Amino acid sequence: MTVSDARTPATGDAATPAESAESTAIGWHKDHVEHPARPDIRVPVRRVHLTNGRDVTLYDTSGPYTDPTTDTDVRRGLTPLRDTWIIARGDTQEYAGRPPRPEDDGLKHTAPRGGLRNLDAVFPGRPRQPRRARGAAVTQLAYARRGEITAEMEFVALRERVEPAFVRDEIAAGRAVLPANVNHPESEPMIIGKNFLVKVNANIGNSAVTSSIEEEVEKMTWATRWGADTVMDLSTGRNIHTTREWILRNSPVPIGTVPLYQALEKVDGRAEELTWDVYKDTVLEQCEQGVDYMTVHAGVLLRYVPLTARRKTGIVSRGGSIMAAWCLAHHRESFLYTHFDELCEILAAYDVTFSLGDGLRPGSIADANDEAQFAELRTLGELNRIAKSHGVQTMIEGPGHVPMHKIKENVDLQQEICEEAPFYTLGPLATDIAPAYDHITSGIGAAMIAWWGTAMLCYVTPKEHLGLPDRDDVKTGVITYKIAAHAADLAKGHPGAQDWDDALSDARFEFRWEDQFNLALDPDTARAYHDATLPAEPAKTAHFCSMCGPKFCSMKISRSITERFGADESAELSAEEIERGMLEKSREFADAGNRVYLPLTD
Amino acid sequence: MTVSDARTPATGDAATPAESAESTAIGWHKDHVEHPARPDIRVPVRRVHLTNGRDVTLYDTSGPYTDPTTDTDVRRGLTPLRDTWIIARGDTQEYAGRPPRPEDDGLKHTAPRGGLRNLDAVFPGRPRQPRRARGAAVTQLAYARRGEITAEMEFVALRERVEPAFVRDEIAAGRAVLPANVNHPESEPMIIGKNFLVKVNANIGNSAVTSSIEEEVEKMTWATRWGADTVMDLSTGRNIHTTREWILRNSPVPIGTVPLYQALEKVDGRAEELTWDVYKDTVLEQCEQGVDYMTVHAGVLLRYVPLTARRKTGIVSRGGSIMAAWCLAHHRESFLYTHFDELCEILAAYDVTFSLGDGLRPGSIADANDEAQFAELRTLGELNRIAKSHGVQTMIEGPGHVPMHKIKENVDLQQEICEEAPFYTLGPLATDIAPAYDHITSGIGAAMIAWWGTAMLCYVTPKEHLGLPDRDDVKTGVITYKIAAHAADLAKGHPGAQDWDDALSDARFEFRWEDQFNLALDPDTARAYHDATLPAEPAKTAHFCSMCGPKFCSMKISRSITERFGADESAELSAEEIERGMLEKSREFADAGNRVYLPLTD
Repeated sequence: MTVSDARTPATGDAATPAESAESTAIGWHKDHVEHPARPDIRVPVRRVHLTNGRDVTLYDTSGPYTDPTTDTDVRRGLTPLRDTWIIARGDTQEYAGRPPRPEDDGLKHTAPRGGLRNLDAVFPGRPRQPRRARGAAVTQLAYARRGEITAEMEFVALRERVEPAFVRDEIAAGRAVLPANVNHPESEPMIIGKNFLVKVNANIGNSAVTSSIEEEVEKMTWATRWGADTVMDLSTGRNIHTTREWILRNSPVPIGTVPLYQALEKVDGRAEELTWDVYKDTVLEQCEQGVDYMTVHAGVLLRYVPLTARRKTGIVSRGGSIMAAWCLAHHRESFLYTHFDELCEILAAYDVTFSLGDGLRPGSIADANDEAQFAELRTLGELNRIAKSHGVQTMIEGPGHVPMHKIKENVDLQQEICEEAPFYTLGPLATDIAPAYDHITSGIGAAMIAWWGTAMLCYVTPKEHLGLPDRDDVKTGVITYKIAAHAADLAKGHPGAQDWDDALSDARFEFRWEDQFNLALDPDTARAYHDATLPAEPAKTAHFCSMCGPKFCSMKISRSITERFGADESAELSAEEIERGMLEKSREFADAGNRVYLPLTD
Repeated sequence: MTVSDARTPATGDAATPAESAESTAIGWHKDHVEHPARPDIRVPVRRVHLTNGRDVTLYDTSGPYTDPTTDTDVRRGLTPLRDTWIIARGDTQEYAGRPPRPEDDGLKHTAPRGGLRNLDAVFPGRPRQPRRARGAAVTQLAYARRGEITAEMEFVALRERVEPAFVRDEIAAGRAVLPANVNHPESEPMIIGKNFLVKVNANIGNSAVTSSIEEEVEKMTWATRWGADTVMDLSTGRNIHTTREWILRNSPVPIGTVPLYQALEKVDGRAEELTWDVYKDTVLEQCEQGVDYMTVHAGVLLRYVPLTARRKTGIVSRGGSIMAAWCLAHHRESFLYTHFDELCEILAAYDVTFSLGDGLRPGSIADANDEAQFAELRTLGELNRIAKSHGVQTMIEGPGHVPMHKIKENVDLQQEICEEAPFYTLGPLATDIAPAYDHITSGIGAAMIAWWGTAMLCYVTPKEHLGLPDRDDVKTGVITYKIAAHAADLAKGHPGAQDWDDALSDARFEFRWEDQFNLALDPDTARAYHDATLPAEPAKTAHFCSMCGPKFCSMKISRSITERFGADESAELSAEEIERGMLEKSREFADAGNRVYLPLTD
């Protein structure tokens, strides 16, 4: 791959995307599960090779960057693997598209094009024209309703290890979404729904205050390397359009945005000057680029704004506060609400998925589950029905800050009001008292709400409430949320979810240290922590570790018990057999010199 | 204070205990709440001084180390503040005590005293003789049952902001314990029970492989500095007795141990050579030193051992595996079980609290809630009744590794079987797949199980399963568990718990950055994260931050809404009033130039 020359100090020891991914891909290799009938459908997986000769296959979101057989180049972009599927359907066509304008990158209308801080001014990759529907909706929802199983659905079925018809039916029912803009053919299809694996979104994005395009592209590949299923580009400030272009052309996962942020930049940050036309133009711009899902705060109605006045933390959603300000300024209903049908028609033409934003989500424990929040949720339910009537895939965003005893009500209400549309929540944070640890305060809430039915979790990093996440924060946020998502998969009894835990626990019980590291969500850190106290190579095969030392190792003692009684799962022993076995084993034990500790290997 | 000269590389930038505590005590000061009638009862608190002139008072576990008016010296030990109370009761007496032996420190019977790696060989502080009951049990349980409210109960009532009679009644009912060995008069009384604040224990302790006495003492003061309510010294290897003496004489919180570890050292690590006499001698040794609670794995019965043979991870408790090995070797019932009455009599004479260990707790998701685990729990219920009949305070230990959907059954069963005795759980870890992040996998389970009734949470550090925790790991573990405990306090609706969240959220909404930092569980890290992107001093008072920049600040916009509509909680507006207000405010808004952003201060 091409190594970009500019280095940004803020990223710390920033390697380029592919370098980072490759250098940490130790102990597993990228592989693909082939579709039995369609060679064009190859689902990426991670194969962990255990020292006992077995393989463990894990879901993989890292894209071609971790595939040594693929040549990647962030200046060229990823191969558009879905192009042939999209073209083959014959229901879309290329067109000239909206001409680029200086204000797309947050520049003054009169300013010359330029001002980019790094990389090239524009994305240098393959020339492309945008694509849109010739007529009716080209959404996975529309296909599913017609009974069609698309290549994307086949891909997802292999990826989730379920039947293609199940994928189709869940999408058709509106219980799942498969975000896949026809203009983002580089993405590897994935599905978001409560009957599938819980997904994790990582937010990235520069702000007017700090960070650069290159940094954001690297955060995207870095986040997916650790397991982010989607990435939201929440950039504000300059270079929004160009940053997004770089991210989309290089992203193997669906990309989400909040178009309102860019629209606000186009009116120089004056919320009251926002218009439907400026907003619509921005949505079209992003549809043509390939954004897969868009957060739309259409549920913030004029009459709900006063409900927030006596809150402890008012409105904490950026989009929500912008729309509230607009409503106040004009004393009119939100243009997102009044033009919602038209918006649906646009999204249906590109298969952009709605993420109906919770602009009035609580920003503190005190404000959780209040009237403002639930009033907006009821409006989101109404909008969900309208979106579906247009064939637009839809998910619903949720909070926020919620104490544990009020979490379940959130998902129960959302599922009822929004007809089981996928819930997509930010945490929630179970307490407000731990800035710098809000990945943990929110990881607690996230695991619980996902168990109860949330389909996708938006990560929170340690920098939440304090600053922009850097590379380490992104990784910590993703790992924390993969823990929450997997804990929920286990609690939901998702088929096969426990295999991963079992493989790691087997390795632990059998002192296969290398396998423990390689099966860990973060092999690098697990290995480093082990080596901090027992660095020598023999310790990697030692039948004890530094916590207890050789004499106190319960695993060692316990293994001797297992060996004595046998662990043959096919045999069911009666009480008498066990008693007889005990006596016998006790004699053997004494004969062997009453030793419970095996000889040390070092 | 005296600075000890030996530095241990493993502790990193180790400051001495008091130095560490003082250097981070910025933004709050140590204060005391005085008992209205008893000047000898002064409850330590942390006063956070806000920039708006208000104070927030927080529970404090850090002991005299954070009190600049107190002179501390780890070589002298803390002032025995409970001595006068214990003596005044007149039911204990000093006695010569058990003579020290080389094997107390894990040395060969014939070896000369010595071999300590740092500090002095023995604790140099004030000479003391152990104290024990003259006759009947001298436990807080015995006093409570007689209707007495002890000074310790008065202290706890002030600390928890409840009535002294409530404290007494909860102890009398066995729903709470107040661990307070008469030989640990340095401890500040605290209570463990589901109707009080959820508590956090931090495990420390050297092992045969690594770490030193000095390091362990420092971990204790460091852990309590960040909020550990009790500390367990799980040392093995050499110097067990001396390490414990240093810790006890310097600890402001109750200290727990697992006497079996030391007993095993005395028989050179040969489990089958353990005897009741060796064990009893060890328990007496530790009672005389002042250990406040002891983990006793008396529920591991011979007939339960085969139940673990087909488990994925067998027996993962050190104590459990040692007792299982003993039972197998002798084919006899555990001496802990057969001598349990005698053990109760010993503990009653010193007011040592039982922590009945879950030696058969699950060590993997696969083994959760299995027959071995619940069989032992039923035996712990039986032992709980026996202990209570001797007047011994008792809590029950719990798992371990449990998926979220199986957590509630653990606490429900324990509460039923053990007649609401305090539950004390290790996490539980909600998944096995994230070594190096098990503070998080377990923090999720810990928050949930505490919400459902667990009274104390044993922390898990990032090094769990990998190595011994260092100073940073201890802090991370404690902070994570304080989050879990506080999240549970909120979910249980504990009176006053939300005040802390509210104070922090108010500071956040009002852009009082310094107050946000000072109210944070970890002010140092919160401040450092903020400064990483906006280091300049004006940023501490800026009405925005680096996440969104000035234009996108929802808090700023939202505050303008609050200001327009007023946040007077005494007023309840009707729908018409709100509508009228909206129109009026809309006009004001237009008159003011349609600006939603306040002028920037920098």
